[in-house]
Amino acid sequence: MLVFVTPHQFMEGICKKLVGKIKGDVEAISLIKGMEVKMEGPCMISSLISQQLGINCCVLMGANIANEIAVEKFSEATVGYRENSLIAEKWVQLFSTPYFLVTAVQDVEGVELCGTLKNVVALAAGFVDGLEMGNNTKAAIMRIGLREMKSFSKLLFSSVKDTTFFESCGVADLITTCLGGRSRKVAEAFAKNGGKRSFDELEAEMLQGQKLQGVSTAREVYEVLSYRGWLDLFPLFATVHEICIFHLPPSAIVEHSERTPRFSLLDGSAALYC
Amino acid sequence: MLVFVTPHQFMEGICKKLVGKIKGDVEAISLIKGMEVKMEGPCMISSLISQQLGINCCVLMGANIANEIAVEKFSEATVGYRENSLIAEKWVQLFSTPYFLVTAVQDVEGVELCGTLKNVVALAAGFVDGLEMGNNTKAAIMRIGLREMKSFSKLLFSSVKDTTFFESCGVADLITTCLGGRSRKVAEAFAKNGGKRSFDELEAEMLQGQKLQGVSTAREVYEVLSYRGWLDLFPLFATVHEICIFHLPPSAIVEHSERTPRFSLLDGSAALYC
Repeated sequence: MLVFVTPHQFMEGICKKLVGKIKGDVEAISLIKGMEVKMEGPCMISSLISQQLGINCCVLMGANIANEIAVEKFSEATVGYRENSLIAEKWVQLFSTPYFLVTAVQDVEGVELCGTLKNVVALAAGFVDGLEMGNNTKAAIMRIGLREMKSFSKLLFSSVKDTTFFESCGVADLITTCLGGRSRKVAEAFAKNGGKRSFDELEAEMLQGQKLQGVSTAREVYEVLSYRGWLDLFPLFATVHEICIFHLPPSAIVEHSERTPRFSLLDGSAALYC
Repeated sequence: MLVFVTPHQFMEGICKKLVGKIKGDVEAISLIKGMEVKMEGPCMISSLISQQLGINCCVLMGANIANEIAVEKFSEATVGYRENSLIAEKWVQLFSTPYFLVTAVQDVEGVELCGTLKNVVALAAGFVDGLEMGNNTKAAIMRIGLREMKSFSKLLFSSVKDTTFFESCGVADLITTCLGGRSRKVAEAFAKNGGKRSFDELEAEMLQGQKLQGVSTAREVYEVLSYRGWLDLFPLFATVHEICIFHLPPSAIVEHSERTPRFSLLDGSAALYC
């Protein structure tokens, strides 16, 4: 059993090194948030692992900030699996402790996209905090963000289930990340500075060399939205990236997210966008 | 057009005074959170208004703490309507402003139960805050609470829709209330005092005569759960009430909510409980 946990940028290189050194009956699980955007579309990290190494790969995501788990505070997580529920059950047993509750759902892409996209919403929540807009606005932005997470995931993968967004990987991880995460914190500082200091500069100052997943994920999501002509369907996702690259002021996160997505741009999208 | 907004305990008396004084074609909307528990089961306030006065009644709920709306911070709300979408559209127009975004959904009971039950979850979130359990645990408790809100609503009214819980009245109002609401604040103080001072005492001290909706709603929900034999299906709801009446310590909110609900107690409930 192989557990992958590393920043997602390194995964393609790591896989290349492992090719030919792993048996086909090995089971893998990825705790990695992010995706690779290629010409033909986005590729989730679990798919990258499966394709490159020829092995099955589950994912583990959830509302679990590491230092709180380390002191044994009650937390939950979600395993996403593709077909084999027995393998999912093995991962559940492996990770479960009396204070760490793991649930399995048959929806790899849904679970993985939750873990990935929540970082973009956390940037939006951080902008709202920096602008001191209050709890109503923050909750509204988080809700609009969750709606875009769900719609984006369903448009990319028709197998994604609505119920996944009620799991720990969905609404709970979104709450944790938008309350206490690093993306939120740096985005708050960005908005407080009026969007004049870059994320690169703020990250260097606040994170001791670490980079925010949210900023690169926002860019990757934007590339997908541009390529597919979906920018008007996802005002929050699109606006987060445009704020990050100084094309819009932080206050645009509220003004633009209020806009109703323009379903008419995409035949049949209204049914998915709900 | 009649707008009802008052603590729910007063509604039966107000309706009695209005009987015979209102024309049948009047349209009503209720902003009231709560329910009347009668021998035959719970009665939502919108139903009470409809039945007593013989008029149609919509509801308006959402993530909107009053003083933030008063200073024109961006907020959202949800109108729940029964059949007539034109009436819903009128209410949407009446309440909408550039900074107050109102959406209509055809699910009166779902919307109204969201507004009512979120106050019980806010007490649970407050206990977690008082015990200083951190963001992972708080997010987990909020998620379990949202799951119980959804399951309880669906068990009571088969017409309730899953999508309603993604609206402002659902996940967004839950977030706002669990971050900033009064129920959360007094419950935090209750847990900090080790559950030794009563809610009556803390309310008198902290709220200048106002009473928390959450405490009475928790009791009402508990009555429904007891009467229908559902206590084991809703560990969080049941535990909140038992903490409020000193039968359990505040820490039970985490220990008990971890329990997997016992579906086997109720035929066919597993399908609803998802």
